Amino acid sequence: MKLVRSIKEMAALSKKYKGRGEAIGFVPTMGALHKGHISLICRARKECKIVVVSIFVNPAQFGPKDDLKRYPRNLGADTNICRREGVDIIFSPNREEIYPKNYKTYLAIDDLGRVLCGKFRSGHFRGVATIVTKLFNIISPDFAYFGQKDAQQAIIIKKLVRDLNMPLEVKVLPIVRERDGLAMSSRNTYLNREQREDAAVLYQALRMAGVLIKKGSRSSKEIIRRMRLMILKKKSARIQYISVFDLKEFKPVKRIKGKILIALAVFFGKTRLIDNMIIKA
Amino acid sequence: MKLVRSIKEMAALSKKYKGRGEAIGFVPTMGALHKGHISLICRARKECKIVVVSIFVNPAQFGPKDDLKRYPRNLGADTNICRREGVDIIFSPNREEIYPKNYKTYLAIDDLGRVLCGKFRSGHFRGVATIVTKLFNIISPDFAYFGQKDAQQAIIIKKLVRDLNMPLEVKVLPIVRERDGLAMSSRNTYLNREQREDAAVLYQALRMAGVLIKKGSRSSKEIIRRMRLMILKKKSARIQYISVFDLKEFKPVKRIKGKILIALAVFFGKTRLIDNMIIKA
Repeated sequence: MKLVRSIKEMAALSKKYKGRGEAIGFVPTMGALHKGHISLICRARKECKIVVVSIFVNPAQFGPKDDLKRYPRNLGADTNICRREGVDIIFSPNREEIYPKNYKTYLAIDDLGRVLCGKFRSGHFRGVATIVTKLFNIISPDFAYFGQKDAQQAIIIKKLVRDLNMPLEVKVLPIVRERDGLAMSSRNTYLNREQREDAAVLYQALRMAGVLIKKGSRSSKEIIRRMRLMILKKKSARIQYISVFDLKEFKPVKRIKGKILIALAVFFGKTRLIDNMIIKA
Repeated sequence: MKLVRSIKEMAALSKKYKGRGEAIGFVPTMGALHKGHISLICRARKECKIVVVSIFVNPAQFGPKDDLKRYPRNLGADTNICRREGVDIIFSPNREEIYPKNYKTYLAIDDLGRVLCGKFRSGHFRGVATIVTKLFNIISPDFAYFGQKDAQQAIIIKKLVRDLNMPLEVKVLPIVRERDGLAMSSRNTYLNREQREDAAVLYQALRMAGVLIKKGSRSSKEIIRRMRLMILKKKSARIQYISVFDLKEFKPVKRIKGKILIALAVFFGKTRLIDNMIIKA
């Protein structure tokens, strides 16, 4: 396994692989790797001759009040995981390599970035779309792997790839969960014991919504109300949003029909967690 | 020579060439090919195994009051020129292929797009950056060729490629001029006889500026004043802007020092022409 720090070296390696017709699978991460990331790496390992994992905590996707500084970083542990999983290259550039002085170019993704999490994290998805575009250009992957936990991110990146005709395929893999249902996240390490226990309620609330819909409930308002009640029973929980979204139009729906996405963001103490579920009515 | 209409077919061809390690040279155009375009094609032909010319009148770079509808289109003549010049592929998709329903993604290029022509053509360079990014992704060129006549476009595209780490090299070739000095442009065909004669003044004014600077003149204001006087002697001329720009900072300069760009946009009747010259003080 190779640790690459420079864009030039990474691009040259990719060019070499492409020239040989070797498929490149790419897993973009901000490090602090957990079982969710590992599931993406495993899939890439199965499907591609070359597996590249990027580790870069992208400042452009953090707001001024976000947790950029305290975001967990542990290149040592991440390197061990990648080696164990048979990764070929870790690409971990520094900040100045990616955003040099006088950097100016961003992706404008329009209304998709202004709903759900985008409503509360202004500029976040612009930053995500920009770093992902840069990494795709540097690494030239044939396949790129993302987790369904960041549902809106996955939708935006698929749209970005389609709209800009990027020559690659995006694969979105299922959420990996802890035993009690909490979705794997690098931010789970922020939680104290009480918050960690409380956080399991997110999955319980999503499952309850699934049951309600299965039983015939079609009102988003009613389902959200029931989820709020369940979540707010936990002392450390503070809800940012719960939304029921049409997956085709990517707009909130009042009456549930077909395939919908229930997405939520909830604070436990100062830690903001997200989760979601796709449900077919 | 092959005429390709679909993105999918073009991308598949590019992938095939890349897999064989064959260099692709790309000349993006809006058709109505003239000697300026031909100089780009010739250079690509010399330097690359595969030459692709795109012909696409990009609606995203025209404002509501611009000349999208009347912009000259002549695929027959363009095809003949391309065949004669040894082009391998003309890529000429239709509008819906490039901007399907529900298209959303654009490039945000910040202040570079707001000066010079961008001040008068709001959204123009966003449209240029977006189509160029799409074409680069579809065609995967090793080299892309642009003309110096669109000086700001060339600067923005170089910046775009560098900022987003696109895996290709941009080459900018000198302006090709008519005998009387008028820069080649598809829009020159709009001019009536008087306007066409008047338009030669643009190059004369730029050359005069060069002489003034060579003789020691260092005041942008004074040089612009002299150029205005010369241009306004022509009855059909109406000046939109004349600017002296620092090439490193890409900002207007008052006192000329080092390498500068003099750029201008002037209407002759309803036809807007641009020209420029790089001058070293």
